[in-house]
Formats: sequence, C-alpha cells, structure tokens
Amino acid sequence: MQKKSQPSEPALLLIGIGPGDSRQMTLAARDALRSAGVVIGYELYVEMVQPLLSTTQEVIASPIGDEIDRAERAVELAASGTRVALISSGDAGIYAMAGPLFEVLRERGRQGRDEPRLVVYPGISALQAAAARLGAPIAHDFCAISLSDLLTPWEIIERRVEAAAYGDFVVAFYNPRSRQRDWQLDRALAILREHRPAETPVALVRNVTRTGESVHVTTLAAVEPAQTDMLTLVLVGNSQTYRLGDWMATPRGYSGIGRR
Amino acid sequence: MQKKSQPSEPALLLIGIGPGDSRQMTLAARDALRSAGVVIGYELYVEMVQPLLSTTQEVIASPIGDEIDRAERAVELAASGTRVALISSGDAGIYAMAGPLFEVLRERGRQGRDEPRLVVYPGISALQAAAARLGAPIAHDFCAISLSDLLTPWEIIERRVEAAAYGDFVVAFYNPRSRQRDWQLDRALAILREHRPAETPVALVRNVTRTGESVHVTTLAAVEPAQTDMLTLVLVGNSQTYRLGDWMATPRGYSGIGRR
Repeated sequence: MQKKSQPSEPALLLIGIGPGDSRQMTLAARDALRSAGVVIGYELYVEMVQPLLSTTQEVIASPIGDEIDRAERAVELAASGTRVALISSGDAGIYAMAGPLFEVLRERGRQGRDEPRLVVYPGISALQAAAARLGAPIAHDFCAISLSDLLTPWEIIERRVEAAAYGDFVVAFYNPRSRQRDWQLDRALAILREHRPAETPVALVRNVTRTGESVHVTTLAAVEPAQTDMLTLVLVGNSQTYRLGDWMATPRGYSGIGRR
Repeated sequence: MQKKSQPSEPALLLIGIGPGDSRQMTLAARDALRSAGVVIGYELYVEMVQPLLSTTQEVIASPIGDEIDRAERAVELAASGTRVALISSGDAGIYAMAGPLFEVLRERGRQGRDEPRLVVYPGISALQAAAARLGAPIAHDFCAISLSDLLTPWEIIERRVEAAAYGDFVVAFYNPRSRQRDWQLDRALAILREHRPAETPVALVRNVTRTGESVHVTTLAAVEPAQTDMLTLVLVGNSQTYRLGDWMATPRGYSGIGRR
C-alpha cells in the first residue's frame, strides 16, 4: 500500500473539475479537492463542487473575470502554509486557470519545483464532453481555437482559422460569441466555407453535462451563429466527417473507409 | 433522487479509461465500467482496469491492432442483449475506439439512437495528462496531429503540420515514431523549425501517469526524435511558450503579458 500524503501538507492544487456534472470529474481531482483546506474558484464553479466539500473547508468564491487576482490569492495562501485547491471548469490547462496561474508564478520569479508544491489535475474539457454526446467527431486530427479577442489580436485568430481550414482540421471553437463579440464566429465560418463542402457537419453543444444541455447538429451552410453564446462549444467537422442519424463522426483517416 | 439505471440493461458503453493511472478515470467511467456484463479491450488496457472489476464480469482481452474486430464484437454482444463496456485508453474519442466503432455502425447501416443504447464516456487524453505534468503548455490554441501514416497519406499529414506552423498553434504529436516509422517526426519538426524560434520549448512525455513515466523538456533546436516512440507524446510550444524552471507554459494571448 502506498502511504497517503498528509491532507494538511501545504500545496497548491490546480484542479480541473470537468464540464459541470460532478461525475465527469476524475477520482484524483475529487480526492485532491477534498484534501484542501481552502477552495478558491469562480462562484459558479464553486457552487458545482459544493456538494463534494465538507463544512470544515473554507470556500472563497469570486466573481467572473479576475483570474489573475484569484491565482495570486491561491499562490499567497499556499505560500503561507495552506493546502489550497484552485478550481477551474473543464480541464484547468485548456482556456482555464493554468494560464493565469503561470503568469503570476512567472511575475513572482518562481523557478522550477520550489515549495509549496504545485500539482495540476487534468479534467474533461467541454470539447471532449461535447464529442462524447456526438459520437466520434474528433476521431482524427483536430484543433481548438478561442474566438475571444480580449487578449489575442483578431488578425492572429483569423490566421489560425485559415490554418485550420488549410490543414483540414476538425475545429472546436471555444468562446464563439458574447454580447460584445457578435461577428467573430460568422467570419470564422465564412473562412471554413471557402475550403469545406457546404454539407460539412457542424454541432452546437450548449451547457454540456449541465442542466439545460442542448445538442444541435447542422451543416456549415445552415449553421446560425446567433444561436451560440459563451456557454456553447461549436464543432466543425473536417472534409470527411459524416452524420449517422443524429450522431457525428470523423473517420480515422483518408483511406476510403467511411468516405462520402 | 434520480432512479439508477438497471445495471443489466443492454447497452454499448464506450469508455475512455484515461492515460493509465486508474485515479485519472472519471467517476462516471468507473461506474459504467463496473455496470457492464462484458468488458472488451486491448489486453494492456484490460489489465489496467482489472483491479476495478468484479469476478462476475466477463473480460475479453484482444491483441493490439484489430480495432475493427473489437468494435464489431462489442456491437454484436450489445445487440444480443448484453451490457458491454468497450474500453479505450485516454479519451475514447481521441485517436481511440470511437473512430472504428462508428465505422462499424455505419457499415451496418445503423441510424440515430436505435437500441441498444450507445453511451460514450470521455476520458483524460495523453495530451492533457502530459500538459498537467508540464504546467500550462496548452493554455492557448492548440492542435493534435497523429504522425501515423497507416490510414492517412503522408502528404495530408505534412500539410497539417504546415498549417499548424502557419497558425502558430501549440502542437501535440501523437504516435511520433515506431520501429517502422522513423523519419516522420524529423520531417515534422523541420517544418516547425522554419517558423518558430530555435529555443521554442518542446516536451517529450513518455508513459504519462504509468510506471516509468518520464518528462523531458528541451528546445526545438535540440530535440532528438530518436528518443521518442509510440508511448511518447511530443508537445511543441507556440512562439510565446516559455519555460519556468522545469515547467512549460503558454500565455493566454499575445497581449505582451508573459511575452519573451
């Protein structure tokens, strides 16, 4: 039997809690979450994991947006001897808290594996939960692109979409549309339409594994960007992707098996 | 309380068991695995989940390679009234059993959500487990490319690598090298070297979460493809990716924060 680590050992645990349903969390993530003295996260995500926590665990729920503040607070608490769980929805490493956390560590000049220990727990990203609902849409090469131009100039995002089109990647668009950003997805889809058949399957998966989940499969010609928002994952098939009833699948290659 | 589904209800459960360590499996996947009458998988993966199974569960372990046979057997057993777990390492949807399973369903003319029920359980892919060990390498847009040209002509793969280079994606190479395929990774890295700084961080992560795990961070100039094999995930940073001691991180954008 392996010796269990002390639950109170100071550490910073960066935890991906998965897309929403707590059963889509890994066992390692759940146990790490329960081992922490303090749990920090965006208020909606804290609410999601609340049923897993005990009353002895301190909870710090913060509003959306201040990722850097949240990361700083977690780093400081861990440095002061606390075992801290910094939670993130989906996979902490994919469009989530790993990025801001490392910006904070870098600014503080942290080098390597100093104390307190940092451990990252991966989780199921929205892309994967959406793919599972759809069947096999990412069974071949794929890419993930965030359409938020808050930190990335639009020219770089557009170039990336052009690259995805040229490379015939299955494309997952994160953050497709918000109240302030209402034209980016239209533009991205227009680029893909120049390179892929009009009937290429496109899926809009909203609130995946959460209450009110919706899965809508349509085509590159018919998709309506106005039906998406920040809670929607948009998945565009490659040139070989096909529909099978309401499933969506991409062949493993270009060998002719499963080709149109 | 939700009514639990009957454990014996006929169904085909496609289960991603994660990268190796059974604690990196989701709770939903573990419970689904335990609910099955028959568990089918490649012998190495079956061995990994064996400790989770009961003696009343039938296990069908098959040699590597015959994915289509394995998928057909699972479909037939489910059709005959069995509750079958078809297991896959990593995420079942990413370079795993979802692709061959849908080829079989398509050939059989299955449409939509016919009985027996098919449920897909996502899992942690090698890319995510490797990223967690490294810190925050995929905190911005990324793509996954398999370098196996068994089912995909090399021209298409090379075009995809060019696209990844043009789009400045963080790149995860799956299946980088085998005894029969010993030049593909060299060629792919040569393409990336034309577009990214020589000091771009590159990680070789082998046997992630398994016995004998190794994590090696180097640069695009210094990486040695001969150090990789089918059990290695090769992760190449984008133009902004940096090292922090032995960690590897990609900024969330191009805003100057975290820039070289």
